[in-house]
Amino acid sequence: MLSTCLARWGYKIKHIDNRAEPTPTGRADGIQPRSLDLLRNMGLKSAIMAHKPARVYEVAFWDPPKTGGQGGIVRTGTWASCPNFIDARYPFTTLLHQGMIERVFIGDLQKNGVQVQRPWTIKGFTSDEKANPEYPVEVQLEHVDGEARETVRAKYLFGGEGARSFIRDQLKIGITHKDPIAYVWGVMDGVVKTDFPDIKMKCTIHSEHGSIMVIPREDNMVRLYIQIASSTDPDFNPRKTATVEEVQASAKRILQPYSIEWERVEWYSVYPIGQGISDKYTLDHRVFLGGDACHTHSPKAGQGMNTAFLDALNLAWKIHAVEAGFADRSILETYEPERKEVAETLLSFDNKYAKLFSQRPPAASDIAAATSTGKTEEAENEFIKTFKESCAFTSGYGVFYKANALNWSASHPAQSHVILDPATAGTRLQPGRLYINSDVTRVTDANVVHLEQEVPLNGSFRIFVFAGKPSVTARALKDLAANMSRKGSFYSAYTRPDAETVSHHEKHNPHSMFYTVCTVFSAPRAQIEISRDVPALLARYVDHIYADDRWDRHVPDAKAAAHAKMGLDEERGGVVVVRPDGYVGVVVKLEEGSATVDALNAYFGSFTTKKLGETQAQL
Amino acid sequence: MLSTCLARWGYKIKHIDNRAEPTPTGRADGIQPRSLDLLRNMGLKSAIMAHKPARVYEVAFWDPPKTGGQGGIVRTGTWASCPNFIDARYPFTTLLHQGMIERVFIGDLQKNGVQVQRPWTIKGFTSDEKANPEYPVEVQLEHVDGEARETVRAKYLFGGEGARSFIRDQLKIGITHKDPIAYVWGVMDGVVKTDFPDIKMKCTIHSEHGSIMVIPREDNMVRLYIQIASSTDPDFNPRKTATVEEVQASAKRILQPYSIEWERVEWYSVYPIGQGISDKYTLDHRVFLGGDACHTHSPKAGQGMNTAFLDALNLAWKIHAVEAGFADRSILETYEPERKEVAETLLSFDNKYAKLFSQRPPAASDIAAATSTGKTEEAENEFIKTFKESCAFTSGYGVFYKANALNWSASHPAQSHVILDPATAGTRLQPGRLYINSDVTRVTDANVVHLEQEVPLNGSFRIFVFAGKPSVTARALKDLAANMSRKGSFYSAYTRPDAETVSHHEKHNPHSMFYTVCTVFSAPRAQIEISRDVPALLARYVDHIYADDRWDRHVPDAKAAAHAKMGLDEERGGVVVVRPDGYVGVVVKLEEGSATVDALNAYFGSFTTKKLGETQAQL
Repeated sequence: MLSTCLARWGYKIKHIDNRAEPTPTGRADGIQPRSLDLLRNMGLKSAIMAHKPARVYEVAFWDPPKTGGQGGIVRTGTWASCPNFIDARYPFTTLLHQGMIERVFIGDLQKNGVQVQRPWTIKGFTSDEKANPEYPVEVQLEHVDGEARETVRAKYLFGGEGARSFIRDQLKIGITHKDPIAYVWGVMDGVVKTDFPDIKMKCTIHSEHGSIMVIPREDNMVRLYIQIASSTDPDFNPRKTATVEEVQASAKRILQPYSIEWERVEWYSVYPIGQGISDKYTLDHRVFLGGDACHTHSPKAGQGMNTAFLDALNLAWKIHAVEAGFADRSILETYEPERKEVAETLLSFDNKYAKLFSQRPPAASDIAAATSTGKTEEAENEFIKTFKESCAFTSGYGVFYKANALNWSASHPAQSHVILDPATAGTRLQPGRLYINSDVTRVTDANVVHLEQEVPLNGSFRIFVFAGKPSVTARALKDLAANMSRKGSFYSAYTRPDAETVSHHEKHNPHSMFYTVCTVFSAPRAQIEISRDVPALLARYVDHIYADDRWDRHVPDAKAAAHAKMGLDEERGGVVVVRPDGYVGVVVKLEEGSATVDALNAYFGSFTTKKLGETQAQL
Repeated sequence: MLSTCLARWGYKIKHIDNRAEPTPTGRADGIQPRSLDLLRNMGLKSAIMAHKPARVYEVAFWDPPKTGGQGGIVRTGTWASCPNFIDARYPFTTLLHQGMIERVFIGDLQKNGVQVQRPWTIKGFTSDEKANPEYPVEVQLEHVDGEARETVRAKYLFGGEGARSFIRDQLKIGITHKDPIAYVWGVMDGVVKTDFPDIKMKCTIHSEHGSIMVIPREDNMVRLYIQIASSTDPDFNPRKTATVEEVQASAKRILQPYSIEWERVEWYSVYPIGQGISDKYTLDHRVFLGGDACHTHSPKAGQGMNTAFLDALNLAWKIHAVEAGFADRSILETYEPERKEVAETLLSFDNKYAKLFSQRPPAASDIAAATSTGKTEEAENEFIKTFKESCAFTSGYGVFYKANALNWSASHPAQSHVILDPATAGTRLQPGRLYINSDVTRVTDANVVHLEQEVPLNGSFRIFVFAGKPSVTARALKDLAANMSRKGSFYSAYTRPDAETVSHHEKHNPHSMFYTVCTVFSAPRAQIEISRDVPALLARYVDHIYADDRWDRHVPDAKAAAHAKMGLDEERGGVVVVRPDGYVGVVVKLEEGSATVDALNAYFGSFTTKKLGETQAQL
């Protein structure tokens, strides 16, 4: 993910892998709903879906019957894995063999001139900014057979080498185990013949013979997770293992009264796992860690690959912003706190979720309340609250970042009466949380589009100008454009050097590599005339002008559903700044005069390389 | 399309093309909404969409300003090209260069062992069923350079060679010109720079300098159709032509006051066209014609490729049904009337649609009424009626076939009180019309699916058992399964010879190659227990059991939206027979006793090779 992003944005990447080829079988396989949005935003989703992955919409819980005595298992409930209230585009988990996912990324890297160098490994590295301010990192690489060696000088080094990270060890960064309990897991991919009715669903099965988790896979396969040992066992040994036959025999006992036979076993592995988080993600903001190198946890929630994706994405755009001369180097310091907090939430969630279902079986009314779209009148009980939080978090939509220079809050240096504080303004958009999905109609070709997908993952901040009703905001929109084009504004200060010669076909970055601007009117498409209603600066983004005229079930009474979903005034609109990774930065009122752009200058000025908004002279 | 279908179903295909390579530029480019459904049903849609085609959602009409005198053009209205009332899955026209579409089909042919033989041409053929009942057709083929020749014996010969069909000429089949007016058209694909605001929409532009049609294309291209001459012109000459420069100059005049410049011209062609239909599509039901060989018309409605697809599809499944021993050879006689009727409608539509907009400019209330989802209280005026019919027809959703053995009607040999006559029973499904789209939840994996897409284009009839409420229909469902499994039933009479050894992974044809059965309950998914609620015969199609529990905006108050959309009783259901090409054959009540299967036996028995339903002994 990191190499793919940076290679696309023009950086030179050396990507090494100590394996001779991409993952042939096994390993991770779960792509969560929000990760699928991200892959689509990168243009990689259709290549993933072409492999016809399994899709998990619901999770089934199986337990011993309450009456007891006669053994066996019964279904105690099924739950949407990504219920309606989340408003996900793809409300399901996508299950596909990791190797296929890797190959999609590798193919994209190749398109951008990067060949994965394999099987090579890292033998050592140093990082010294004083000695070499431009390329402070020196890395020793070696072919795994010891046949060849090379030394590389780099601006950055990223270790995504998994739980036994060499780089983390060299940096002497320790791991804190959140949960003292360690486990030994068995995992088996194969094709089965069974009369167990939920074999194509994700299932958590508890029986008096043990526990199993069922994950459906592509090509009629199924993955079974079996807990083989726990450090709470009296005879615990992290090296405890079990053969394929033993695990199959155990699965047969657990699934009784249903039968199961294997037609084929594609992959089988046993591994010990502890729930741990690396103490630091970086020491010097030149050598970074991410993925399993930073956090290890049980595979049950299907979060490993997804969390690693987001680690890499978070770092990628920040490195780009720094190296392209836009952001101050200090934004790299936000990587560790933003991503470590998510890892901590993940680990505590893992325990919480397990407890949730062991405490008491949920009632039918809980299921209805927890998975429905609307708000229930009654106060939500603890069970429903936890369930909802869990769904939001595991789907990826609930992942959020705390306040910092990028994520506005009341204590941010940018202070203005036009900045909308979600705590008081009632906007549904919250800095540090994901931008909200909405459908709109593109004015230029009348295509119905997913607004949140309209700007590809291009490393730019996304400025969504919700322009309300054209008759109400005409002046404010003109003032916005005029102040954006002033010298020293957040927008003009980072004009492309080649802005004069950019092709008229350039859709996303006609003026600046750091911003893409979208304008959304609260009006039917046919009533919007770009040449009349849109100031030239915004009209240059002719493919990014939209009509907010699509009905949405989540806000059935709204006239302008996207405005309403964001919590913005349907007539007066507002300006939403979205970070390159899709998280909201700040939300500002769209007002006449200069206050709107002044506020944006203050927001961006808190982390850009240039001072903004000081020079008020017209360009 | 014909070769692709038959190759997939196991037939040996010789496919020749007199061009050295697939279409490099130009030709057809419009895939209508219903054709996209069909491509998806064949698993070919994503390969098409990977080319990022343009999508036309609306059509804009431009005319000289009413005030007159000052010249120029103004937009007089825009219209949804596939309005909501049609309930299309993909309510847009997909525009993509024909060569890319061809290559998707060619790739699929190759997967099934068929190589297009090119550049080869046909030099002659004979057809004599008496002399050779099994392979009555003998065809002489030749390399276009005359280098090589071969003679092929075949069961069938299909001529899809376009307007100047050699096969049609050899058969001495004439063409009837519906519209005596002939035209000369110019067509130009290219990349332009323009301030014309609707360059990414489909536009019909009339000006005092002439008329143009604008069609957006992939890769920033645009296609312009320019009418160069008409046989109503005093100096008409079908050989009249115009250079690229002349057409560009003409386009510039027509688009005034907007400017247009060409950055690149990819393709340019001038061709005369008359509106004609071939008098016969076949003489002996061994040598067939389809596509432009049978019908030529103006390119304006974007119907050429789509009509050709449906010609081929219609013939493909009928040949398969005959050759596989299921249907009587007489069903081949339905090809010509079904498809010729559609061609006639297409030609008369072409004139009607043009007149529609020349008569009077539509009022705003017309636009609202014509494109809305709901039914308007007031009677529809002629304009709206014609517009709606036109949209339905051009989208492909309005194409229908008249009554015959395949499309039940009151005069069909199958007569039973349980057959639902749409004229009296109020069902929205009509024999000879397309099956209606609906969302349902698959029981086995909780996936939300498009029911109409669940059975791939496998050459089988699709039996949709709408099973209503399980508590109401338990007995009827049991009786249905029991009577289907009786010896001599429509279902049992065509059991696969290898039925005993079919893999348990076989989803669509476990028992018979001629039927795929889907069961849809009017109940929430979690309440359906397959082992309890579904008789074994139906339960064998474990991936084709669904819960009708998805809300649908078109029937907002329905408890079981799919049942409601079909016009079936939400508690009692009904059985819908859908032809392999997606058109409804017959709709039957789901009743206790044998009446339902008796009616199906009578329906199928009217065209199957075996007598059905006579033997009442249990298997």
